[in-house]
Amino acid sequence: MPEQPPGSGEDELIARHFRPLAHHPGAFDLEDDAASLTPPAGCDLVITSDALVAGVHFFPDDPPDTVGGKALRVNLSDLAAKGARPLGFLLALALPSGFSESWVSGFASGLGDDAHAYNCPLLGGDTVHTTGPTTICITAFGAVKQGQMVHRAGARPGDLVVVTGTIGDAALGLLLRKDPGLAACLRLSARQQDELKRRYLQPQPRSAIADLLPEHVSAAMDVSDGLAGDLVKLCRASKVAAEIEAARVPLSDAARAAVAADPALLENVVSGGDDYEILASVTPARFESLQQAAACKGVPVTAVGRITAGSGLRLLDQAGKPMSLARLSFSHF
Amino acid sequence: MPEQPPGSGEDELIARHFRPLAHHPGAFDLEDDAASLTPPAGCDLVITSDALVAGVHFFPDDPPDTVGGKALRVNLSDLAAKGARPLGFLLALALPSGFSESWVSGFASGLGDDAHAYNCPLLGGDTVHTTGPTTICITAFGAVKQGQMVHRAGARPGDLVVVTGTIGDAALGLLLRKDPGLAACLRLSARQQDELKRRYLQPQPRSAIADLLPEHVSAAMDVSDGLAGDLVKLCRASKVAAEIEAARVPLSDAARAAVAADPALLENVVSGGDDYEILASVTPARFESLQQAAACKGVPVTAVGRITAGSGLRLLDQAGKPMSLARLSFSHF
Repeated sequence: MPEQPPGSGEDELIARHFRPLAHHPGAFDLEDDAASLTPPAGCDLVITSDALVAGVHFFPDDPPDTVGGKALRVNLSDLAAKGARPLGFLLALALPSGFSESWVSGFASGLGDDAHAYNCPLLGGDTVHTTGPTTICITAFGAVKQGQMVHRAGARPGDLVVVTGTIGDAALGLLLRKDPGLAACLRLSARQQDELKRRYLQPQPRSAIADLLPEHVSAAMDVSDGLAGDLVKLCRASKVAAEIEAARVPLSDAARAAVAADPALLENVVSGGDDYEILASVTPARFESLQQAAACKGVPVTAVGRITAGSGLRLLDQAGKPMSLARLSFSHF
Repeated sequence: MPEQPPGSGEDELIARHFRPLAHHPGAFDLEDDAASLTPPAGCDLVITSDALVAGVHFFPDDPPDTVGGKALRVNLSDLAAKGARPLGFLLALALPSGFSESWVSGFASGLGDDAHAYNCPLLGGDTVHTTGPTTICITAFGAVKQGQMVHRAGARPGDLVVVTGTIGDAALGLLLRKDPGLAACLRLSARQQDELKRRYLQPQPRSAIADLLPEHVSAAMDVSDGLAGDLVKLCRASKVAAEIEAARVPLSDAARAAVAADPALLENVVSGGDDYEILASVTPARFESLQQAAACKGVPVTAVGRITAGSGLRLLDQAGKPMSLARLSFSHF
């Protein structure tokens, strides 16, 4: 046995690509079995975990740096919706036989860029082999003032239903990605197509307004599975109902053009998912303050409906008539 | 759209099988996007993450309750080796097409039994679809007094190298599982075979002595990839070398019988992995106190060698001559 045996392939892969992302003191340079984290004094830890599978949550030929970024961003989006600022994350990465080191390098590079941009360093994790597709599981940690985590439960009749940004872009981007002929049918410009596809590839977590939520909203979550279905979840947790006016759902220019060309796409917009915008309920008295404070951080907030007593969701068309959807949101099973 | 739309298949699966495991108040009944956790006053959080892939880390036909238990236990073993007591865990579960609900039920049942036994409730997680094999990622949280987490770094020349329990049983159990004819060649009794296979199927994390480690050991880790390779990792982190006397490595009766029948199996014993025992370095002055305190908790501790200056690992046979191993430990790549 050599005096100083070389590290295993696994250890070397981690050292080369992931150690540079692990500058948090509690990561112990990824040379220990566990990480250590102590939330700031007076804060609770908020913890969220999301798994992404190649061929299910991203395309195997997506650029690896966008895959790395997306894996972190979907978790940052959850933290933001709970009012938490990021502290760090763990990565469990299952790589298939014959993975390319350049894929891992690109993945780590995109992940590292976003870890830096969102001030959310790598704390530790696990790297294993899989006989299936590349599978990424990120667990992210955030801090929120003690007892101030924003919940799905808390919405009350009379509250406004609000969303950040625009809805449906990512779902339309995914459609364009799956059906390259669709863009021409919808008469979308190259810029519009790129914009929609980018929204699918690179979610923009609303971390900038996370700290505004605890004092402004009665309930919130991020829109990951589709506005309609996610609002139903918020309503169920809050034991209330909601009404949305489809005409008030904020659309990007590109999404507006797509829906104008094919009105049936409105269903994809409201139930398609991957928006990673924040959906919240706000009392009318707090709405303007939230809208102004968010605008200062560059985040538009739009009221799209209201919370009512009862249960379920009513989606109203421009004439105020209830619309029906074939499905509310994305479900894995 | 129905007034009260039913939950999605995903939501219902979670509610049926996993909500009963989520009695921690910070789990919010698995009805929120994130969990909340605040470590006890004066404690640091210790965090570890392990991924298990069907066909890689367990056999697809292993009883699902043992798979659930093992997924948690390998993480509990990491916490124990760091001196931390369990607080809770997150589960990210990727299920293949056509998974059976009875598998999920069995998995959740085994997981729940161990979550209860080790006082480590489910806090949250994610359930997704995969086109590959079932993949389980558990992130476990533990608490240790501030600054008291036990590290891999810290071993010093003159320290004894110690291990808990017996080494090599799981590796031999795995061999028997892969090669049903082997047991007869080794003349193992049915009881001995069962014992070895059980060690592979059901690791026994040494949580009982976690709280003894911070005051007794200079460095520790759990033995998951093989005693030899894991000791090399501990030495590398501590910038020291180590010497192990093969004859002092504690073996179960079953492992002793197997090695007596085929001495070449000693290599599997020291480099095979899946032991989930604790490997630590201890000053000679603290050894007896650790051994006695651990014995009171039913955990045997055996000195198997010593830490020396330099780098690397020397494994000595019964005549004190260096042995060589074809490989030090398991590596995924």
